Amino acid sequence: MNRLSNYLQEQQISVAFVTSTANVFYLTGFYCVPHERLLGLLVFPNQEPILVCPKMETNTARNSGWKYGIVDFSDTDNPWELIQKKLDQTNLSFKKMAVEENHLILSRYYNLKDLFQEAKIENIEPELQQMRLTKDESEIEIMREAARLADLGIEAGVKAVAVGVTELEVLSSIESEMKKNGVHKFSFDPIVLFGQKSADPHGVPGNQKLKKGNFVLFDIGVHYNGYCSDITRTFIFGEASQEQKEIYQTVLNAELAAINHCNVGNKVGELDTISRNYIEDKGYGPYFIHRLGHGLGIEVHEFPSLNNQNNQPLVEGMAFTIEPGIYIPEIGGVRIEDDIVITKDGVEVLTSYPKELQIIKEQVKI
Amino acid sequence: MNRLSNYLQEQQISVAFVTSTANVFYLTGFYCVPHERLLGLLVFPNQEPILVCPKMETNTARNSGWKYGIVDFSDTDNPWELIQKKLDQTNLSFKKMAVEENHLILSRYYNLKDLFQEAKIENIEPELQQMRLTKDESEIEIMREAARLADLGIEAGVKAVAVGVTELEVLSSIESEMKKNGVHKFSFDPIVLFGQKSADPHGVPGNQKLKKGNFVLFDIGVHYNGYCSDITRTFIFGEASQEQKEIYQTVLNAELAAINHCNVGNKVGELDTISRNYIEDKGYGPYFIHRLGHGLGIEVHEFPSLNNQNNQPLVEGMAFTIEPGIYIPEIGGVRIEDDIVITKDGVEVLTSYPKELQIIKEQVKI
Repeated sequence: MNRLSNYLQEQQISVAFVTSTANVFYLTGFYCVPHERLLGLLVFPNQEPILVCPKMETNTARNSGWKYGIVDFSDTDNPWELIQKKLDQTNLSFKKMAVEENHLILSRYYNLKDLFQEAKIENIEPELQQMRLTKDESEIEIMREAARLADLGIEAGVKAVAVGVTELEVLSSIESEMKKNGVHKFSFDPIVLFGQKSADPHGVPGNQKLKKGNFVLFDIGVHYNGYCSDITRTFIFGEASQEQKEIYQTVLNAELAAINHCNVGNKVGELDTISRNYIEDKGYGPYFIHRLGHGLGIEVHEFPSLNNQNNQPLVEGMAFTIEPGIYIPEIGGVRIEDDIVITKDGVEVLTSYPKELQIIKEQVKI
Repeated sequence: MNRLSNYLQEQQISVAFVTSTANVFYLTGFYCVPHERLLGLLVFPNQEPILVCPKMETNTARNSGWKYGIVDFSDTDNPWELIQKKLDQTNLSFKKMAVEENHLILSRYYNLKDLFQEAKIENIEPELQQMRLTKDESEIEIMREAARLADLGIEAGVKAVAVGVTELEVLSSIESEMKKNGVHKFSFDPIVLFGQKSADPHGVPGNQKLKKGNFVLFDIGVHYNGYCSDITRTFIFGEASQEQKEIYQTVLNAELAAINHCNVGNKVGELDTISRNYIEDKGYGPYFIHRLGHGLGIEVHEFPSLNNQNNQPLVEGMAFTIEPGIYIPEIGGVRIEDDIVITKDGVEVLTSYPKELQIIKEQVKI
């Protein structure tokens, strides 16, 4: 909060109006998903911040340690009028304000334009992204635990695999096991895909039954103390064809090549290029249909983006996924994904479930 | 889609750019959560629509039955350039366009302003809301099934309750049971709260252990074939105090009073007023801290909003929740919530788990 206030002062911005769950959490420790209701944090250069939230969230905000002013509103209040009233008590003039251009919705932009008619509206996101881009030790500690819990999810998935089980049954076992470990929130709906369905990077688990020779893909992320993990492992059930083995090994080598290149100063985009070139050299280029990975932290997708055009340098404390994949509709898909933190002299891989090719023995469901 | 095209023609709007998952699904049958990537549907008055989506979603879009043009983009493409290129092939002039003001983010608004420099930008949401406000029989049929599955969630919760279990353990049993019934997506993270924790309308399940005399509150919604259900039931474990019974009965009567007032032509806001007045008369007014309910359909919160200032009339096919609650921090909270559809001559209550006060017998966990 101090850093943001200082930035506003430097830039002569009168107020930042921060509305995303993630950035409000980052700045306040208050985690709130307000649905269609307004959540906002007003940060000033030289004055205590003000939180704007639905009345039903006020207690939670206080319990999260919020000690400054709150403008709270019921479902019949007009929050913009209440904000205006609160601001009228200050003697501030609003020449320049800042919002999150990739979060603020158009109707609220119009509301702000009404409220601050003189104000020029700038984007505060680059600065907030810059702050969130590198994680400090306390954040990494939380992310380690989130990653450890994600590892347990893969373990639970492997245990649940047997002839004839459905994707949804395996998913259920994973969720049940995770609950026993105290996990009550995932970063996204966990993915379990068998056979050809694994060729869809965003496939949805269904009543597909497991057969010998199928790929088995798990993509699981845990939301822990406000931070996310995200792991993918792919297995083969019963027996593997030569081509399946080759695809798997190609993805694994492509992933390791990228991890090995994770050194402070290298460019983010080079990681994608290295992985992609390896896969292209093996002839699978057209089947690697997404970027190498994405930043990870409070959000499961945040900065940096691991695409080959990203020229940002790797810096200590950056956290992201590395997750190359090969997806062939007739055969299925393989993706291997780990969570990475850049350290002073290399890399810490937070997720640790083994990734050498594992052919899960055929077992009959009991 | 036809109705929207006709509307655009009437209003002389050159193009609608629809970007929300819910409205794109409503218009196309393609359900896509694009995260930070762009999803868009361009609808014209006299021309086939165009879908804009990430390349990795193209197959899913086709499999959902989309038969018109697609502008798909990889993570390194600039989707706005591709859209421009596609539109350059048409001979349209863009004087007036329409977007979703409560969904379009500011940065995309700027992109559109660049692309359609001459265009006046209007809001298409009221029209889309109007279309979605009343459900047809095929939608209600899906919502019946979503509600039936939510009922099963309550049943599973009640079964899992025993001395000393934690909220998370009960949650796990519910999710596991739901998976067995083919549910792979919830409308929101299911809520299980014991004792005083039930006084928080948005409490999060944790390691709280169940004790005799606790309230047990379940709030569960199922996402089924693109539509949502949302049910809340509150029980008392072991034995109930006089005050707990009184609170429960007050909430139940307030809920029934609102349901009984559900007739075509009555105003939406009257339902809130009737429930609220009942609760106020019993002296619990200050503890009913939210609106009576919310519209339900593709989104778990949609129109109409059941607050006492909503003067819209009830019309056939409207679907919403009715969910009064009383929340007393030292005692706990009671909420009873059902899913309702307005019919020609009254109301259909989609959720059907019994709601007379139920004191769950103390059972020891096996």
